[in-house]
Amino acid sequence: MTKLIEYEEASDEVRAVYDDIRATRKSEYINNFWKAIANHPPSLVRTWLVVKEVMTSPGEIDPLMRELIYIAVSVTNGCEYCIASHTAAARVKGMSDAMFGELMAIAATANMTNRLANGYQIPVDEQFKT
Amino acid sequence: MTKLIEYEEASDEVRAVYDDIRATRKSEYINNFWKAIANHPPSLVRTWLVVKEVMTSPGEIDPLMRELIYIAVSVTNGCEYCIASHTAAARVKGMSDAMFGELMAIAATANMTNRLANGYQIPVDEQFKT
Amino acid sequence: MTKLIEYEEASDEVRAVYDDIRATRKSEYINNFWKAIANHPPSLVRTWLVVKEVMTSPGEIDPLMRELIYIAVSVTNGCEYCIASHTAAARVKGMSDAMFGELMAIAATANMTNRLANGYQIPVDEQFKT
Amino acid sequence: MTKLIEYEEASDEVRAVYDDIRATRKSEYINNFWKAIANHPPSLVRTWLVVKEVMTSPGEIDPLMRELIYIAVSVTNGCEYCIASHTAAARVKGMSDAMFGELMAIAATANMTNRLANGYQIPVDEQFKT
Amino acid sequence: MTKLIEYEEASDEVRAVYDDIRATRKSEYINNFWKAIANHPPSLVRTWLVVKEVMTSPGEIDPLMRELIYIAVSVTNGCEYCIASHTAAARVKGMSDAMFGELMAIAATANMTNRLANGYQIPVDEQFKT
Amino acid sequence: MTKLIEYEEASDEVRAVYDDIRATRKSEYINNFWKAIANHPPSLVRTWLVVKEVMTSPGEIDPLMRELIYIAVSVTNGCEYCIASHTAAARVKGMSDAMFGELMAIAATANMTNRLANGYQIPVDEQFKT
Repeated sequence: MTKLIEYEEASDEVRAVYDDIRATRKSEYINNFWKAIANHPPSLVRTWLVVKEVMTSPGEIDPLMRELIYIAVSVTNGCEYCIASHTAAARVKGMSDAMFGELMAIAATANMTNRLANGYQIPVDEQFKT
Repeated sequence: MTKLIEYEEASDEVRAVYDDIRATRKSEYINNFWKAIANHPPSLVRTWLVVKEVMTSPGEIDPLMRELIYIAVSVTNGCEYCIASHTAAARVKGMSDAMFGELMAIAATANMTNRLANGYQIPVDEQFKT
Repeated sequence: MTKLIEYEEASDEVRAVYDDIRATRKSEYINNFWKAIANHPPSLVRTWLVVKEVMTSPGEIDPLMRELIYIAVSVTNGCEYCIASHTAAARVKGMSDAMFGELMAIAATANMTNRLANGYQIPVDEQFKT
Repeated sequence: MTKLIEYEEASDEVRAVYDDIRATRKSEYINNFWKAIANHPPSLVRTWLVVKEVMTSPGEIDPLMRELIYIAVSVTNGCEYCIASHTAAARVKGMSDAMFGELMAIAATANMTNRLANGYQIPVDEQFKT
Repeated sequence: MTKLIEYEEASDEVRAVYDDIRATRKSEYINNFWKAIANHPPSLVRTWLVVKEVMTSPGEIDPLMRELIYIAVSVTNGCEYCIASHTAAARVKGMSDAMFGELMAIAATANMTNRLANGYQIPVDEQFKT
Repeated sequence: MTKLIEYEEASDEVRAVYDDIRATRKSEYINNFWKAIANHPPSLVRTWLVVKEVMTSPGEIDPLMRELIYIAVSVTNGCEYCIASHTAAARVKGMSDAMFGELMAIAATANMTNRLANGYQIPVDEQFKT
């Protein structure tokens, strides 16, 4: 188990990231993911920069849909922590029970057909190559 | 390489699925995936039933977003055929270049943080357990 | 692309493995997998020892079923070479078209339900823990 | 943690699936997987239809071997719930300790050689392409 | 197939990254990975920032070992492009044939034991938890 | 949960492996992995032979770096047991906190770029093919 770095014991560099997480999310809560990777400050700084930009910068995919995509990947990889934290985040952003059910169905179906495509060694259609 | 079953040589059971794919998609084109799994008709019937229901039945996630989720899973699994076919399908449904770029960024970021969560053996926060 | 080591240019250590592969399989053909890993003789010796023992030693799972299990894993991992070579091996051992179709269906279904179990964060039933 | 839907509180649609699971398996027990996905009834109905057909319909692969293939996939994906539930199901269908040991050895070996094939970038043999 | 963005047609933002890649690697060559993700400039900028920092900043793991770790992950994921490009990069940094052989053996063995640990549902030893 | 085979109740064949593990590692402790797979003695014998040879025989990659590669694979696969046990082993061999942080960063970055390469369907550069 990795030591979780609390704000009180953190270096200034780590505190600055924690402060930005709080400001960006408009919530005092820092979840364990950040407290764990804070053990290696360059990873904390870099990972937060990437996650903040990818998940919150303006774009064509709305914030809730970004969370759904995140969950679909995490479910495919079987990352328990990520499934739990991003499911919670998606609920905060408005994911309904029905939407979660549909998301699970899509992710499960894609995992099924991915293997059929592998196993049957299906050549890519010419028209999909452009 | 799996033999691809063309409409002309297909059994009535297989033709019925091909007809429904054409009607549902409003397109004459049957892509190789279906022609390949048609070698085992029960798989063709069952897989089409699942894919049709999951990808086209009314729901809270719109058809384009369903394709994006499908692509995110296929990219995570490295399924070349599925990436090519669902990227083509998403473009038909309106995916812009910017949207594809954002999608790739989200899928890539989730794959990155999934491994950080694994490696740091991060305990799930109590508040994510409910 | 890895250089493929042919019998004629191989060291005695590598030739001994090739000879044993031929004797065990009762076939002159050495497939590319062995010719590639022969670039690192200790890997060739060790991998053949493991594969030979696991796939051909007497046991409760018959040789054809062992190939089916091998294919199911390779399909899940998306290993193109392994799918092609073990599907060929399974056909030699008697895999019918119907059996291949059933195998694909089982592997695809397991990949689907694996993700539902992940996503719904389902607790293991007490009775499955013993 | 997903709420588990018990029979008593279930809708008629969900109860009908639970009844069919019980009749098919000749057992009163409904395991947590079904109670969890019952939160999204279309997934419950569809997943049971697929699992029932793929795992219990007549075919060339016997029921015990189907379970072994299921376990091999689940082990490859690291799905804890699926490994526990299908190992239990396989034992009920007659899997011995030796058979489980052989299964693990085959699944582990396939995972090993899959990566050797990836890493050495081995070209598929011409004779495996037909 | 994604369009590859050449220097001549690139925007100033993209050119600045290409220039930095060239300066950092002391080579004129820009490989296809960067030319492909340049279709979405924010991904190009961000990914290069991460890769440059993680792979080239001063640290306790030397540059060649970083490449070996990168290859081990890519082999596990079956990413053909990444295996090819990082194997080439590792050779430039001094990877010998023997070292590549050892690397493949370690990655393959880890993939094997990972599945044995999954399948046998082995509890983590108390002394590994601290 | 798999029964763990203790030395006292083990067969001579299993004891011989336990003795060799102790002698090789210069430690009395046998971790749960070996006690679990000892349920199938041929797997214990074979797996120890492979792990011992791959992880401890003389070679160009030093013992600590071998552990780092092992961890990178285990993190990619999400194998909790393997991450815990090999992280402990790496610490014994001298892995510092900074080194662990760098390792996680490399493994996470490779997982990220692997998916970008998949999703953008990037053709392998000609010069990487030799």
